Amino acid sequence: MQRVLKSIGAVPGFRASGMACGIKPEGRKDLALIVSENPATAAGVFTKNKIQSPSVKVTRSNLAKARTVRAVVVVSGNANACTGPRGLEDCRVIVRRLGKELGVPPQEILMASTGIIGVPLPREKIIGAVPQLVRRLSGGGLMRAAQAIRTTDLTTKTARVEYTQGKRKIIIGGMAKGSGMIHPNMATMLAFIQTNAAIDSAALRIALKQAVDGSFNRITVDGDCSTNDSVICLAGGGAASPRIACTGKSSKEFRAFGDALNEVCRILARKIVEDGEGATKFITVRVEGAKSARAARQAAFSVATSNLVKTAVFGEDPNWGRIICAVGNAGVSLRPDRVDISMGAIPLVRNGAPVPETSPKQLKKVMRKKSILIRIGLNLGREQAEVYTCDLSYDYVRINAEYSS
Amino acid sequence: MQRVLKSIGAVPGFRASGMACGIKPEGRKDLALIVSENPATAAGVFTKNKIQSPSVKVTRSNLAKARTVRAVVVVSGNANACTGPRGLEDCRVIVRRLGKELGVPPQEILMASTGIIGVPLPREKIIGAVPQLVRRLSGGGLMRAAQAIRTTDLTTKTARVEYTQGKRKIIIGGMAKGSGMIHPNMATMLAFIQTNAAIDSAALRIALKQAVDGSFNRITVDGDCSTNDSVICLAGGGAASPRIACTGKSSKEFRAFGDALNEVCRILARKIVEDGEGATKFITVRVEGAKSARAARQAAFSVATSNLVKTAVFGEDPNWGRIICAVGNAGVSLRPDRVDISMGAIPLVRNGAPVPETSPKQLKKVMRKKSILIRIGLNLGREQAEVYTCDLSYDYVRINAEYSS
Repeated sequence: MQRVLKSIGAVPGFRASGMACGIKPEGRKDLALIVSENPATAAGVFTKNKIQSPSVKVTRSNLAKARTVRAVVVVSGNANACTGPRGLEDCRVIVRRLGKELGVPPQEILMASTGIIGVPLPREKIIGAVPQLVRRLSGGGLMRAAQAIRTTDLTTKTARVEYTQGKRKIIIGGMAKGSGMIHPNMATMLAFIQTNAAIDSAALRIALKQAVDGSFNRITVDGDCSTNDSVICLAGGGAASPRIACTGKSSKEFRAFGDALNEVCRILARKIVEDGEGATKFITVRVEGAKSARAARQAAFSVATSNLVKTAVFGEDPNWGRIICAVGNAGVSLRPDRVDISMGAIPLVRNGAPVPETSPKQLKKVMRKKSILIRIGLNLGREQAEVYTCDLSYDYVRINAEYSS
Repeated sequence: MQRVLKSIGAVPGFRASGMACGIKPEGRKDLALIVSENPATAAGVFTKNKIQSPSVKVTRSNLAKARTVRAVVVVSGNANACTGPRGLEDCRVIVRRLGKELGVPPQEILMASTGIIGVPLPREKIIGAVPQLVRRLSGGGLMRAAQAIRTTDLTTKTARVEYTQGKRKIIIGGMAKGSGMIHPNMATMLAFIQTNAAIDSAALRIALKQAVDGSFNRITVDGDCSTNDSVICLAGGGAASPRIACTGKSSKEFRAFGDALNEVCRILARKIVEDGEGATKFITVRVEGAKSARAARQAAFSVATSNLVKTAVFGEDPNWGRIICAVGNAGVSLRPDRVDISMGAIPLVRNGAPVPETSPKQLKKVMRKKSILIRIGLNLGREQAEVYTCDLSYDYVRINAEYSS
């Protein structure tokens, strides 16, 4: 039985802290640290952008080399991307200093960063803050870490799922940041997930990849991917025996863990879309009856990334012409005379032509809601996919035209 | 020697008319007819959207069957898309009635339409207007036809190129409509080109395809393709002997014709971007030093379709972080430490890192201009590509949120 909580709380075996070291103006928190008491198994999923921050490189390299991980440090306000050769050096110096303070090898520390591109990290400020960052670590510190990783976010995004395995209580707690630039492969998006489960690295990698595919890779705000996106999961093993193994992929234990991890990721992804820059509405695009899962997903993304559909939803206009047009542009097999479209429960299009009996009054009511469901039936097969996005508003333009490089 | 004129004027061998038949409100012109005095060779390029208007289907089918074409009729204000089986029947009835009035076989008449989706054509209004539409045909009517094909366009878009071949003057005149939804494969975009050249169907097809690839397929306003996009070229043959033949693909005559056709299409494409919905700036994205022409084009489109780049340009912010991010997302080979970016003549990024000596004052001046050139050097090869787009403004959101389905 899963128990879903909106707030991260404490995760046994983990301590965390979040503080301001002077990267962001006005003393806002900009440095976060998460530490596992025991050597943790770890997995990560990273941006597909060809331009990657040195933080991502260091983390990927450490994940590949080290068998276990002890800490994740996050810098927010500076992405440390496109900073030339010194970017990588800055990461290494910070991780080494932190390793010394924590008494752990530097290759067991992962790093993430987010914020402005092309400006070197204020290394000395970060180095200077390390002793205090470590001193402030506490079991209740995960929420402060979640606050510290925010940039243009209006909300602090955390989630927690609990379930029991035998006699033990397994806890998975996650935090995320992201609002603009969100797209599959997780643009300007960071998420850190902690669990007291004992799980193989290999099993954890599989579970995390599946969870990210069903959550962070299903959301889009404006279609761009960033240089820094990372989802990292640490399993501290505090709830050991039996250890969840890769070979038990279909085992009850693996399934229960996977389900809980999926749920944490889904909640966080949904919170990111709800916090989309300038968003006034949450849009679910569901494509059904596709020949393949891939086609369903592609069609759903084509609709969810269409500026014309997104502005129409902002204007509360049930413009199915733009929706069917976006479906036609998806590059997937299509029989135009079989396409059905409905807005929530109200049918708009049947067999590719408008439904004459649609009530404009009911439709207006549906379009006024905060949460809009666009359902598209291709009637070609049995596969389906859901993608989440938000509308495109005046505020999106304002926020992104005013944000200075 | 090419002579380029901004206005279409008259093209020998062609008559045209444009009038209002009551599809659009307020008596705006909504019906256009272009007729060739002689049987014309013809070629067309059409939308890649899987949902296609019956007008497109009728035109494609007539182009495939008939050896020559005599007329093009255009309905504006109603796209006749997603109207069920009656959509095709409406087209056939209109084309038949028009054929009778003109005294030509219906399969020698092409049709295009643009406007609202999902509403049946007001067939009787169109049929009723046919006699007057034909009566009003005149050599000077091409400009009236160009006015009649507009929908949300703020400008009437025409172009004319003249050159001499032997002792004969060849004239190519074109008209286009389109502002929102513009993307490669020509979303909600129509163009009709008339020439007095004598040219093989096969040669005309090759020349038109090349011209469209270098013009209409290089522009993007918001990334959506429509159900109705068509570019149609009629060659009336009035300037016969020697006939330009497909076998003479590399001949002087074919090259001269191709160059002139390219120029007409480029002028029309540029006018469409300048008229982009809510556009305040014209943006050229030029990618140089790519390994292949395809990679150059892909990278340029990734930048030109990025909402983050487009809003930054609207805000006059030289945000190269968003540009390099979009390049990294293009899915093409990239060496991050080789990427150069400049804004007009001002270098911003060299070898993947910011150029320290960039003058903020000069940069501000460049960003204030109406026409912005973003140059990206990949330094991996010798191929390049240019793509044209416009910024993303408050007015884009307003126009598209208020436009009712």
